Amino acid sequence: MPEIKKILVANRGEIALRILRTAREMNIATVAVFSEADRNAPHVRYADEAVCIGPPPSSESYLNIDKILEVCHQLNVDAIHPGYGFLSENAGFARKVREAGLIFIGPSPESIEVMGSKLAAKEAAGSYNIPMVPGTASAIDDRDEAKRVSAEIGYPVLIKASAGGGGKGMRVVENETEFDEQMDRAVSEAISSFGDGAVFIEKYITSPKHIEIQVLGDQHGNIIHLFERECSIQRRHQKVIEEAPSISITPAIREEMGRCAVDVARSCGYYGAGTVEFIMDENKNFYFLEMNTRLQVEHPVTELITGVDLVKQMIYIAEGKALTIKQEDLQIKGHSIEVRVYAEDPANSFLPDVGTLTTYVRPQGNGVRVDDGFEQGMEIPIYYDPMLSKLITYGQNREEALEKMIRAIDEYHISGVQTTLSFCRFVMNHDIFRSGSFDTNFVNLHFTPELLSIPQTRDTKQLAALLSAYFIKNAKPKQSVQEDPKPVSKSKWKTQRLS
Amino acid sequence: MPEIKKILVANRGEIALRILRTAREMNIATVAVFSEADRNAPHVRYADEAVCIGPPPSSESYLNIDKILEVCHQLNVDAIHPGYGFLSENAGFARKVREAGLIFIGPSPESIEVMGSKLAAKEAAGSYNIPMVPGTASAIDDRDEAKRVSAEIGYPVLIKASAGGGGKGMRVVENETEFDEQMDRAVSEAISSFGDGAVFIEKYITSPKHIEIQVLGDQHGNIIHLFERECSIQRRHQKVIEEAPSISITPAIREEMGRCAVDVARSCGYYGAGTVEFIMDENKNFYFLEMNTRLQVEHPVTELITGVDLVKQMIYIAEGKALTIKQEDLQIKGHSIEVRVYAEDPANSFLPDVGTLTTYVRPQGNGVRVDDGFEQGMEIPIYYDPMLSKLITYGQNREEALEKMIRAIDEYHISGVQTTLSFCRFVMNHDIFRSGSFDTNFVNLHFTPELLSIPQTRDTKQLAALLSAYFIKNAKPKQSVQEDPKPVSKSKWKTQRLS
Repeated sequence: MPEIKKILVANRGEIALRILRTAREMNIATVAVFSEADRNAPHVRYADEAVCIGPPPSSESYLNIDKILEVCHQLNVDAIHPGYGFLSENAGFARKVREAGLIFIGPSPESIEVMGSKLAAKEAAGSYNIPMVPGTASAIDDRDEAKRVSAEIGYPVLIKASAGGGGKGMRVVENETEFDEQMDRAVSEAISSFGDGAVFIEKYITSPKHIEIQVLGDQHGNIIHLFERECSIQRRHQKVIEEAPSISITPAIREEMGRCAVDVARSCGYYGAGTVEFIMDENKNFYFLEMNTRLQVEHPVTELITGVDLVKQMIYIAEGKALTIKQEDLQIKGHSIEVRVYAEDPANSFLPDVGTLTTYVRPQGNGVRVDDGFEQGMEIPIYYDPMLSKLITYGQNREEALEKMIRAIDEYHISGVQTTLSFCRFVMNHDIFRSGSFDTNFVNLHFTPELLSIPQTRDTKQLAALLSAYFIKNAKPKQSVQEDPKPVSKSKWKTQRLS
Repeated sequence: MPEIKKILVANRGEIALRILRTAREMNIATVAVFSEADRNAPHVRYADEAVCIGPPPSSESYLNIDKILEVCHQLNVDAIHPGYGFLSENAGFARKVREAGLIFIGPSPESIEVMGSKLAAKEAAGSYNIPMVPGTASAIDDRDEAKRVSAEIGYPVLIKASAGGGGKGMRVVENETEFDEQMDRAVSEAISSFGDGAVFIEKYITSPKHIEIQVLGDQHGNIIHLFERECSIQRRHQKVIEEAPSISITPAIREEMGRCAVDVARSCGYYGAGTVEFIMDENKNFYFLEMNTRLQVEHPVTELITGVDLVKQMIYIAEGKALTIKQEDLQIKGHSIEVRVYAEDPANSFLPDVGTLTTYVRPQGNGVRVDDGFEQGMEIPIYYDPMLSKLITYGQNREEALEKMIRAIDEYHISGVQTTLSFCRFVMNHDIFRSGSFDTNFVNLHFTPELLSIPQTRDTKQLAALLSAYFIKNAKPKQSVQEDPKPVSKSKWKTQRLS
C-alpha cells in the first residue's frame, strides 16, 4: 500500500489551509502552489514548500495542469489534493495525475465523469431505487406530448431547455391554461440561447429544501454515509448558511436518504469523499439532484457532529486503506451551523465587495471554529471567489448552536469590506429560520436590505416583526429554480465554483 | 424561580472572557470588573459594562469584597460568577453575596466551608464508602505508635507535619531502618516551622497519578458526574497538561470513581460545578484527595468530550433549575487534551517571565480551541498568575488529539516572553506520555531543559532518545509529595490559585 509522504494542495485560501493542517497532523510533508496575486496568502507560508505557478486569472495558474504536474515532479510530490472548485471535478486532470504516477486524493476519473453528466448520473443511479424528480426522461419537442406529460405529473411544472444552463430557457407553468404561452417562451429562449429548442418537462417543487448526504467510500467497495446537511439558505442559488443535522427530516427519512446516497455512490463505483444532493418538497418527498465528487465547502458541520476528520479519511482512502469507520458506529452528536462570510454587500444585492481588511478579529471560545485564509491588513484579490471565511459553531442542540453563532457573529470584527455577516445574523434571529420552515426561497421571501438596520434584541423583536411585515408586504417570490445551473462539462469551468 | 438578568464576573483574564461569552449566548447582560493594571484587557471590552475596582495587587481590587458588592448594587447586578482563584472558594464571600440578596453562581457557603477544610472534608466523606489514603486519622506524637502504624500500612510511608503546608515537615520513609532518622527530621522541621511537633503518618504513593472527576449538582439533590480528567503532568506541583478521558483507567474504575465523586458531593449537600480529586497508585487503587468547589481551569476538556457547556449549567443551577442532563445520557465522545501556556521559561526552572507580547498569533482549524485573555502587543501584568492561555484540542481518539496538539503548538506564534509551549511539545512527543505510563513525577524523572533543543521529528527520534538517556542519567527523583500543599483557610489566599 503506498504511503503518502508529500502532498501538493492544488488550491488556495481557506480550503488549502484546511488540507495543509490535516496533512501536517499526519506528519505528511506539504507543498502549496500560488498565483502571483496570492504571494502573501497564509496558505503559502503554512506549507513546507511553496511554488508560484503563474499570474491570475486562474486559467494561468490554479487551472494550469501542466505547471502543477511539473511542480510535483520537481519536488517529489506523491499525491495531489484538489480541494473544491478549480480542478477538483475535472476528470481530465484526475486522469493526468494518475498517468503521471501520482495519487489523486479524490475519486477515479471515471466516477467524476459519470457524475459530471446529468444524464449519465441519472442513468447510473437508475439501476438503483433512487427517487428522481418526476418528468420526461429525454428531451421532447412535441407540444401535445409535453402537455400530456405535464398533466400526468401535475402542475406546477418546469419547462427546461435541454441544452440549458444558468437559468436560461427555464419556465414555471402554474396550470394548463398558461402552458402554451410558457412553452413558447421557453422554446424561443432555448433556440436563441442554445440554438436548440428541445426541452425537458419536470415537476416544479414549490418550496424546495436542499438537503445533501456526505458519503465516504474506500477502494475496496465499502461505502458509508455521514448523515445530512441542510443548505436551503441560499442567495443567487448559492449556499450561504448550512447546518447538520437538518431540522426538517425524521430518522426514517435520514435512513432512507442515507441508503439512497450510498447507492448513488455505489452506482459509479465511488471512492473518496463525496456529496449526494437531494431536493425535498413540502411533503418531505425527496429526489436525487446530483453528486459532487469532491470535498464540499460545508464539510465542517459534518466533522463537528460526527467527530470524523474528512480530509484525513480522504488521505487514508487515497492510500488504499480500507475504511475503519462502520456505518453502525456513526451517530449524530449535537448540532452544527456554518455561515459563509463573503466579501459581499447584503444591502446591495449581495454584490461582491473589494478592499483591504483593515480590521480582522476572529471570534473564539467554546464551540466556535473559523476556517479562513485571510489576515488583518490583507487585500482581497479580485480574481477569486469572494469568500473570506467560514464561521462554524457547535452546540448540544440547534438552539445552542444558534446562540453560539449569534455570539460569534457579534464577536467577529471585520472592516474594510462589506460582508454577509449582518445577513447571517438576520437569518439566525428570524422566526422562520428558527422554526425550520424555511426553504430555498427564504432570501426572496423574507429578506430585504432594510431589515439589516433593525436591531435584533429581545426588546426589539416585536418591532422587528412589524417592520419586517411592512417591508416584505409587496415582495413576491422571484422565479426560483430547483438547482444550481450547471454547465454540461465541468472541465470547462474557468472560475472556482463553491457549493 | 429567579431568572438571572445581569451577571458580574469577579475575575480577569481567560476565565472572565470564558464566562462572559456564555452569558452573552444566554442573552444575559454582563458586567466586568478590573484592576488598574487590567484597563486594556479584552475581558473589559467584552462585557456590556465594566468598572475599575482598584489598583493591583489583588487584595486592593479582585479580592475587595465590599467594592465588588457595591458595583453590583449600583449596576443592578443579580448574580456573581467568581471564576476560579480569587474569591471563588471563599465561603465568607459567598455568604456576603447571599446576604446582599444576590445569587452566587457556585455552591453554598456551607459546602465551600466543609470542603475547604481537609479534616471536615474527610469527616463528611467518611460516612460514605470513599477510599482514603491509608494512615492515621489524627495527629500522633508517640514514636512507637507511629512505627506500629507504619508497619501496618506498609512502607514507604510519608510523615507529615499536622500543622504543615508547602512541603515543610514532610518526609518519605522507605523502610523501618530509616524510620527514626526521618521521624526526627520531620518533627524538628515541624517544630521549627510551625511550633508543633505532631505528625500524621500516611501511605506514600510512589508513582501517583492525579485523576479528578467533574460533578454537577442542582439545588434539588440531583448530582451527576461528567467523567474524569487526568492531570498528572505537573511542574512545581501545579498542573500544566490535562486530558479527558484518562488513558490509565478502565470503565469499571471510571464508574466506581464517578460513584465516589458523586457521594463526596452528596456528603456536603453540593450544588453547582465541582471537582473531586483523587490520587491513584501503580495498582490503580485510588484515594480521595480533596474537592474543589468551583469551576476548574481544565474544565474545557470535559466540555469537549461531553458536549456540555459547564458555565451554562452553573448558571441554570444558580437559577434553581433542575438538571436536565441524566447520568445515563452522558457518554464520552472522543478525546481532548489541554496545555496551559504560561509565561514561564521551561529552560530556567519554569520561572515566570514578564514582557510584552510582541507576536501573538493563535492556532486555528478543526479540533482546536484557544481560551485566552491576551492580544498581540499587550504587556503581561506582573501582579497575576502568568497563564497566557489554554490550548485545547479534540480528536476522535487520543492519538488524533495528540496530533492536533502538536500541529497547534507549531502554529502558535508567541514572542516577547518565554512560554511553556516548547515544554508541552516535548511532552506530547515523549514515549512515556504517549504510552500513558507517566505519573506526577514526570518532570523530575524525564525532563531537563537541554532536551528542549532536540528537534522532535520522525528522523531524529532515535537521536533524541539517546540524548534523553544521557541527560537524564544522573537525574534522581526529587522528593515528591502527593498533593498540592494547601493552606488551612482558603479565604486567606492573596493570589490567584490555579488548579
